[in-house]
Amino acid sequence: MGAVNAVDARADRLPKQDRSRATRQRLLEAAVACLAEHGWAGSTVLVVAERAGVSRGAAQHHFPTREDLFTAAVEYVAEERSVALRSLFPQGAAGDRRAVVAALVDLYTGPLFRAALHLWVAASNEDQLRPRVTELEARVGRDTHRIAVELLGADESRPGVRETVQGLLDMARGLGLANLLTDDAARRDRVVTQWAKLLDEALG
Amino acid sequence: MGAVNAVDARADRLPKQDRSRATRQRLLEAAVACLAEHGWAGSTVLVVAERAGVSRGAAQHHFPTREDLFTAAVEYVAEERSVALRSLFPQGAAGDRRAVVAALVDLYTGPLFRAALHLWVAASNEDQLRPRVTELEARVGRDTHRIAVELLGADESRPGVRETVQGLLDMARGLGLANLLTDDAARRDRVVTQWAKLLDEALG
Repeated sequence: MGAVNAVDARADRLPKQDRSRATRQRLLEAAVACLAEHGWAGSTVLVVAERAGVSRGAAQHHFPTREDLFTAAVEYVAEERSVALRSLFPQGAAGDRRAVVAALVDLYTGPLFRAALHLWVAASNEDQLRPRVTELEARVGRDTHRIAVELLGADESRPGVRETVQGLLDMARGLGLANLLTDDAARRDRVVTQWAKLLDEALG
Repeated sequence: MGAVNAVDARADRLPKQDRSRATRQRLLEAAVACLAEHGWAGSTVLVVAERAGVSRGAAQHHFPTREDLFTAAVEYVAEERSVALRSLFPQGAAGDRRAVVAALVDLYTGPLFRAALHLWVAASNEDQLRPRVTELEARVGRDTHRIAVELLGADESRPGVRETVQGLLDMARGLGLANLLTDDAARRDRVVTQWAKLLDEALG
């Protein structure tokens, strides 16, 4: 009887967990879109809940505070982004470094980067947000660096290689910032071509 | 009598103009500090006037709108920044590209970059601000590029050189962004050393 009840309870719980996961995901996606479009000042749990079509109570059940919601949202999309980047080159990049540099730079344009940028800038002025965003940023940065090293086939035991890859990711971040106010795609494409060449020579 | 009056009027006017210029400058400096510390949402003409020790009326005489005040402020400090950069190498950089790269990167850390970053991010969400900040950013970007080319002794008639310098400035911007939440000076220094070396090889 105990065993049957346990099975029943599990069967009942599964779809509920799925629903709960779907609600959470809708909230996270709405939070990123909201942050990218309206910035931190215009992004509250209530606004996000409405956008996601979720009640305020349900939203607060998942994310008790605004800080919880927005750091989780940026983390969620950063993870999606890493998965997307890896899936671009399922067998590795086969030495096409131009393609890898372009894909890395693409990580820093578009709505996720905009959302992350709003979060960083807000965190620089909000004591409650800063430690969480700083920790998140460090984690995402390490992850991106590891993927970049792998895809570029960079040998970090050689002096300077680690800093070469870091500088490339800093450049990608700067290109993302340059794209914030105007469509900078044509110039970005030329810079990517040239720096992929320099990188190729540097990495050997 | 007309001539004497004109001289008197000029003598009266000069100190007044000086006072007016000093007030304007105090307002601009206070605006940048305010934007860097509190972001766009916390930066109003009134807050800046109080910080500068200037009456609200006098502040509004100089800058009728918030947008006027803050775009003028970032423009003012960008000009100061260009002057400072040129004065670092009054006889040119004499081939010390590591020093030039470090000085260029320094432009993107510190309070001015923070202020500019807040302005860019605010402009991305505020229709009134966007065209002015976009125009300002393009102008400052061209100016910085010209100074960088000069100090690096880069020959832009050679293919790829223009994009090499652009990518360097994008990297500098990205390094500035990486410094927003944490003190990134030690890592930045290593990246600068490595990329100055790559740049030196690329520019010949």
